[in-house]
Amino acid sequence: MRVQVLHGPNLNLLGQREPDVYGHVTLDDINEMLDAEAKTLGIELRKSQSNSEGDLVDAIHDAAGWADAMIINPAAYTHTSVALRDAVAASEFPVIEVHLSNVFAREDFRHHSFIAPVAVGQISGFGKDSYRLALHAVKGIVES
Amino acid sequence: MRVQVLHGPNLNLLGQREPDVYGHVTLDDINEMLDAEAKTLGIELRKSQSNSEGDLVDAIHDAAGWADAMIINPAAYTHTSVALRDAVAASEFPVIEVHLSNVFAREDFRHHSFIAPVAVGQISGFGKDSYRLALHAVKGIVES
Amino acid sequence: MRVQVLHGPNLNLLGQREPDVYGHVTLDDINEMLDAEAKTLGIELRKSQSNSEGDLVDAIHDAAGWADAMIINPAAYTHTSVALRDAVAASEFPVIEVHLSNVFAREDFRHHSFIAPVAVGQISGFGKDSYRLALHAVKGIVES
Amino acid sequence: MRVQVLHGPNLNLLGQREPDVYGHVTLDDINEMLDAEAKTLGIELRKSQSNSEGDLVDAIHDAAGWADAMIINPAAYTHTSVALRDAVAASEFPVIEVHLSNVFAREDFRHHSFIAPVAVGQISGFGKDSYRLALHAVKGIVES
Amino acid sequence: MRVQVLHGPNLNLLGQREPDVYGHVTLDDINEMLDAEAKTLGIELRKSQSNSEGDLVDAIHDAAGWADAMIINPAAYTHTSVALRDAVAASEFPVIEVHLSNVFAREDFRHHSFIAPVAVGQISGFGKDSYRLALHAVKGIVES
Amino acid sequence: MRVQVLHGPNLNLLGQREPDVYGHVTLDDINEMLDAEAKTLGIELRKSQSNSEGDLVDAIHDAAGWADAMIINPAAYTHTSVALRDAVAASEFPVIEVHLSNVFAREDFRHHSFIAPVAVGQISGFGKDSYRLALHAVKGIVES
Amino acid sequence: MRVQVLHGPNLNLLGQREPDVYGHVTLDDINEMLDAEAKTLGIELRKSQSNSEGDLVDAIHDAAGWADAMIINPAAYTHTSVALRDAVAASEFPVIEVHLSNVFAREDFRHHSFIAPVAVGQISGFGKDSYRLALHAVKGIVES
Amino acid sequence: MRVQVLHGPNLNLLGQREPDVYGHVTLDDINEMLDAEAKTLGIELRKSQSNSEGDLVDAIHDAAGWADAMIINPAAYTHTSVALRDAVAASEFPVIEVHLSNVFAREDFRHHSFIAPVAVGQISGFGKDSYRLALHAVKGIVES
Amino acid sequence: MRVQVLHGPNLNLLGQREPDVYGHVTLDDINEMLDAEAKTLGIELRKSQSNSEGDLVDAIHDAAGWADAMIINPAAYTHTSVALRDAVAASEFPVIEVHLSNVFAREDFRHHSFIAPVAVGQISGFGKDSYRLALHAVKGIVES
Amino acid sequence: MRVQVLHGPNLNLLGQREPDVYGHVTLDDINEMLDAEAKTLGIELRKSQSNSEGDLVDAIHDAAGWADAMIINPAAYTHTSVALRDAVAASEFPVIEVHLSNVFAREDFRHHSFIAPVAVGQISGFGKDSYRLALHAVKGIVES
Amino acid sequence: MRVQVLHGPNLNLLGQREPDVYGHVTLDDINEMLDAEAKTLGIELRKSQSNSEGDLVDAIHDAAGWADAMIINPAAYTHTSVALRDAVAASEFPVIEVHLSNVFAREDFRHHSFIAPVAVGQISGFGKDSYRLALHAVKGIVES
Amino acid sequence: MRVQVLHGPNLNLLGQREPDVYGHVTLDDINEMLDAEAKTLGIELRKSQSNSEGDLVDAIHDAAGWADAMIINPAAYTHTSVALRDAVAASEFPVIEVHLSNVFAREDFRHHSFIAPVAVGQISGFGKDSYRLALHAVKGIVES
Repeated sequence: MRVQVLHGPNLNLLGQREPDVYGHVTLDDINEMLDAEAKTLGIELRKSQSNSEGDLVDAIHDAAGWADAMIINPAAYTHTSVALRDAVAASEFPVIEVHLSNVFAREDFRHHSFIAPVAVGQISGFGKDSYRLALHAVKGIVES
Repeated sequence: MRVQVLHGPNLNLLGQREPDVYGHVTLDDINEMLDAEAKTLGIELRKSQSNSEGDLVDAIHDAAGWADAMIINPAAYTHTSVALRDAVAASEFPVIEVHLSNVFAREDFRHHSFIAPVAVGQISGFGKDSYRLALHAVKGIVES
Repeated sequence: MRVQVLHGPNLNLLGQREPDVYGHVTLDDINEMLDAEAKTLGIELRKSQSNSEGDLVDAIHDAAGWADAMIINPAAYTHTSVALRDAVAASEFPVIEVHLSNVFAREDFRHHSFIAPVAVGQISGFGKDSYRLALHAVKGIVES
Repeated sequence: MRVQVLHGPNLNLLGQREPDVYGHVTLDDINEMLDAEAKTLGIELRKSQSNSEGDLVDAIHDAAGWADAMIINPAAYTHTSVALRDAVAASEFPVIEVHLSNVFAREDFRHHSFIAPVAVGQISGFGKDSYRLALHAVKGIVES
Repeated sequence: MRVQVLHGPNLNLLGQREPDVYGHVTLDDINEMLDAEAKTLGIELRKSQSNSEGDLVDAIHDAAGWADAMIINPAAYTHTSVALRDAVAASEFPVIEVHLSNVFAREDFRHHSFIAPVAVGQISGFGKDSYRLALHAVKGIVES
Repeated sequence: MRVQVLHGPNLNLLGQREPDVYGHVTLDDINEMLDAEAKTLGIELRKSQSNSEGDLVDAIHDAAGWADAMIINPAAYTHTSVALRDAVAASEFPVIEVHLSNVFAREDFRHHSFIAPVAVGQISGFGKDSYRLALHAVKGIVES
Repeated sequence: MRVQVLHGPNLNLLGQREPDVYGHVTLDDINEMLDAEAKTLGIELRKSQSNSEGDLVDAIHDAAGWADAMIINPAAYTHTSVALRDAVAASEFPVIEVHLSNVFAREDFRHHSFIAPVAVGQISGFGKDSYRLALHAVKGIVES
Repeated sequence: MRVQVLHGPNLNLLGQREPDVYGHVTLDDINEMLDAEAKTLGIELRKSQSNSEGDLVDAIHDAAGWADAMIINPAAYTHTSVALRDAVAASEFPVIEVHLSNVFAREDFRHHSFIAPVAVGQISGFGKDSYRLALHAVKGIVES
Repeated sequence: MRVQVLHGPNLNLLGQREPDVYGHVTLDDINEMLDAEAKTLGIELRKSQSNSEGDLVDAIHDAAGWADAMIINPAAYTHTSVALRDAVAASEFPVIEVHLSNVFAREDFRHHSFIAPVAVGQISGFGKDSYRLALHAVKGIVES
Repeated sequence: MRVQVLHGPNLNLLGQREPDVYGHVTLDDINEMLDAEAKTLGIELRKSQSNSEGDLVDAIHDAAGWADAMIINPAAYTHTSVALRDAVAASEFPVIEVHLSNVFAREDFRHHSFIAPVAVGQISGFGKDSYRLALHAVKGIVES
Repeated sequence: MRVQVLHGPNLNLLGQREPDVYGHVTLDDINEMLDAEAKTLGIELRKSQSNSEGDLVDAIHDAAGWADAMIINPAAYTHTSVALRDAVAASEFPVIEVHLSNVFAREDFRHHSFIAPVAVGQISGFGKDSYRLALHAVKGIVES
Repeated sequence: MRVQVLHGPNLNLLGQREPDVYGHVTLDDINEMLDAEAKTLGIELRKSQSNSEGDLVDAIHDAAGWADAMIINPAAYTHTSVALRDAVAASEFPVIEVHLSNVFAREDFRHHSFIAPVAVGQISGFGKDSYRLALHAVKGIVES
């Protein structure tokens, strides 16, 4: 089973700044945790991050043919990108949307997701555990 | 670790009707799966279901003193109940909101949750696996 | 042919108060009229009233297996209850929504019905005759 | 007792096209059914159909002095015509609004009716039976 | 100076029905009053009424070449007709919008006028005097 | 017959600035025109102008006992002043709202008037003639 | 003079949790204070609390015949319950709406009250004193 | 191949008035251009214009049985007519919506089209060329 | 204890006009009642009224240093004045908002208060008793 | 005559996935069809595709000096990109907006185009023919 | 070069109260800073403050003939005053809008400015430096 | 003191096209002016421009560690980019938002800024002087 993990804009900053808000976990920490968990679950993992909407669209296209599923944290593009939505909708593998924070407890404009209606499901609010749970969810979906 | 699971209105019908929509899984199946998973995770579980908003509020109150965390599928009351929201906000244990279906892929009025802003996080769209993932999430939250 | 009639909140007050608004007809009068009319049409009738959203949801669940159709006056819950909507949508028998008064000639919040889109049809504005017409409508639907 | 029945725009097409949506019943079938039912009820009937908003307004004016009541299916003009609303409001006989389909289960713009607040009541969703029930409703109103 | 007066839908009913609302003045009374006043002001008058949006558009087109100005009471079409608006905007003579009643003291949907932005001005609330004042306004505009 | 004329904020600037927008007519010109016209109609006139919402409210109060009617051009306060609306509603004489320009052909926020629903009627778009027509309207109202 | 006091959902938790938000006053403290104050004012008091919308509707019905007035803190149901509104509207005694906190200083959805338009008046923001003031208000209303 | 061309309200005025806005092209010019182009493409053409919503609905009905496709410029009715929408939706031939001007560069109320969702496609902004392109589009659709 | 009472626009008219709406109580009656009540409660009182938003802002500024609390009936400015809100927010003494009538039972624009979120609490609907209750509320707040 | 064709995000996927929705036509097919058609019309063509909003803005800038006109299918960026809008508005050549599908028959958020008001015109719903028609439109515009 | 500085409502309180919010800078401090800076720039300065909307309108009128430019901090009236907007629009000198705080980081109702569209530009968020920068901006505008 | 200046999309076109709208000032002119002004103020400057949202996010990240402050003209991305907002919010240096034109005097969608609430302040409408003033503002902020 092969899973592509896609980290959206500003996630490269994790742990470096605003640690009181986002904690001290870095994107590397998340990726390492995911690698370890994936190993346990027998999942092959690819991970990438980009601040560019277009690059993220490219990355979804490029995952086709390789990935059995995708975990995406669209971050800010969750709320503004129809292009990402169309790429997700066009993909043939299941896509799971994750968020570190509880987006519904933040500003109003973060309550709407262009991605959610075309994703399989959504996990938000559990910090880096959102990703780990998504990996388990993926396993359940692909194997069912 | 003790966890209260709360099933909202109409979930008692699961598996009996509209199987093409909600699948053949019954609420008993979900509860049995949860019991098994909880055993593995060393979690003590209580489960209840009600179609009444007031009874669900009561159930949240009653869990105080016993539960370390709560998993709630507020179902229809997700979108209409400020009373449930206030009960969740008043509880001292973490509450996780789950949904069987992807509520964002359904009618507009299901996109808004009164519970989400006062819950720790939200898991939706993975069928009965939404509950199983929530159990794992609870373990992560309570033990951290 | 068996039909369940469900009266929603505050309908138990009919005829006792605000007679200038709702007339002098009581809920008993309506039930008696329905019994008489049902007899003529060869319909077996059950009737119940509740002020509780949860009890009304239960009543819809309980009608399954017995009723061939349901006539419901959701009253105030028409405008606020997704739980009732989900129960109606999950029922396998046809449901007809009735209102004594013309809800469209009243406050704005009474113009929206959560029930209407999942009911077969809607009859409103004819006083107790709304129920009688619904009984005739039921006969047409079930026999067709 | 004399009743004017008014059929709005596109209803002349009934049964000829989109039979999978509107069924095979034609406007003639409906009119014949109404004639038969009216005979039973001792009601004298006039029926007309027009695709023109202005003609429908004229028809309401012309019914004055002859009709004791009116049954109107305003079809598309339900949602756009203040002129029809004003004509109905100015009429001295009771007017009943009927719809073949359940307008609340269709597009959002069909959920609003300019006619409903000035009609006596509304019957929708029962196919040609909507008209038949309206005839019975008329009898109840005029004779009460 | 030649002025076309255009009366919109349902105005033919004036004085005949709902006299408690619209008074006992008939459309003939208004036209006679206008004829008398026009004579005094040296204005040649044409008057017509229609319940049809299309006929009113035609009437505006037909006034071209003859009329120096138009007084229009668009009645219900005030709030719904872009076609009338386009006809008024395309006319080369000044158009004055009049209303018998104070439309701003009535239902919300009567507060918006498609005609007002393309008319010269608006006079509302003075009963038949709205027309008389419009005639004086016309004189002022055309002679200035 | 005694009529109070009230000019709202910025009207003291008329004719002095932006003559291409508001023309070369000054407030003095309007007042002189009104005096002349009032003389003809046998009307006694008082006129005042203020840029202060509170002073205008005072002026409406002060007119009580003297005035038989009021002509008010609330200018900018038309769109923002509930205080003026309440003063107008509390007055026992009829109030007519006038505007020099066609407010409906300007910015959206000028389309709403807090005064209109409590005034007798509204005349807008005829330049200083709006006032003259209002004087004639007043005469019609008070004498009827 | 007899007054029914009705406490809505989650008010049974008062003083036990979130003391930094709601203070250390318990519902028992409020009821004792009310009893003492009522004694002074010569008022007979009944008090009840429920988390169920339906039970609160029942309680309003049951107060009929006994109570001269009602003080209700509808809590969360303030914002969502048309059923409570209808019950209040149908009651023949005056009803006063109270809130412990200043609901207008909280989330937007708490700014709207379905009860307020059908209550006599509203007192909010004074903690337990809101109830005490309501008792005085009741006395004023019933005795006037 | 037979194509019905339908011109909506006010289009009969083309070229005669407001030439600075709509140019000097008349409806006859457009029809002649269409005849010439149709000849080249081997298409038989019928053309009609009406200012009446009802007549346009009739025209769509009448085209059934003869036309293989329709080109409609609904003009003002684009934005207000559900009746036209229903007629287009009920037609069995493909319908193409054209506009002379770029409706999206005009007033807000012109941005919404009731026709667009039930038409095959939409061409706007190319002056009389909008019609010519529509003829080519029709050929592509019918022959594919 | 010293309390400033501030009466907003049009309140000087109380009892003089529209007695059927506002009753026969005058502002002097209210002030006398307040003086008497204040004496009983050991409160020193200052009272003023103004129709000017700016004067009311000044009055709030001027109360600083003298007043321990303020009772304000902002009347029409409740719904339109950010300036009053800012003055209240900047004051260091508690401010209580009162209304004679139940503002929630009146026009929609009266349901929103700019003052409420920055006041301590709100009392509305009890006629002159609203002021008296506010005096008691003040005592509770300042002494607690 | 030189025309730049710009294909927006996800259009590189055409024909490869979701063939039941978008058909089997690939972007290469469209480009080849355009080359052939351009040759016939004597038009020199450049084509490019990008998933990146910024690259598309760059491409519009780069076309300046070379292109006489542009055909753009902004795809998802139609609905979200003010940057593209500004680039189109700043270009000196005419720009035509095309869409393969009928965007008005899809989700609500696809009904709004930031590009449309600054483009010459819009062609949507004709599959690859939308591009071919745009080429003809371009010819008409540039040569006129 | 002569510049009028206008301070809006509540700004007279600066530095005296809520120093944690607005800092310890008083209006006198700002005026002294402005005097010093103006001297350096060769600008003659007049400054005034008022809590009254009408007085501020008067002040704008009075500046005509003397001032070459105006700096205005409309404070609360920014969001509610069309009268100020009209006065600014009618002025012949350039007007610059300043705010001490970042209004866009505060309540929603502070995000809208009636003044901004008719001012030259807007400077907000820099404390008293907002005024100093405005003085420099004025110099740039008047001298260019 | 080191300041990063960031120019958003389409600003590379400045001065080359639409000179009647944006003037003849080029981006190079602005940068040269900024270099000169910075020299005077003892500020070290870096400047960059991009049409890509992702590149601008990268640039904000890259400025960390070097810059003491940032001046950003987000241009079109002001209104659509949550990604830029998040990057600005995550930056540890103060950010000032500038606009050449008065965005509040343009289309409605330009009135909302995702950046403003997380920036220190906003300067708009002064052409290239907006940048110069921002440099002075930066100096004030960093040195205070």
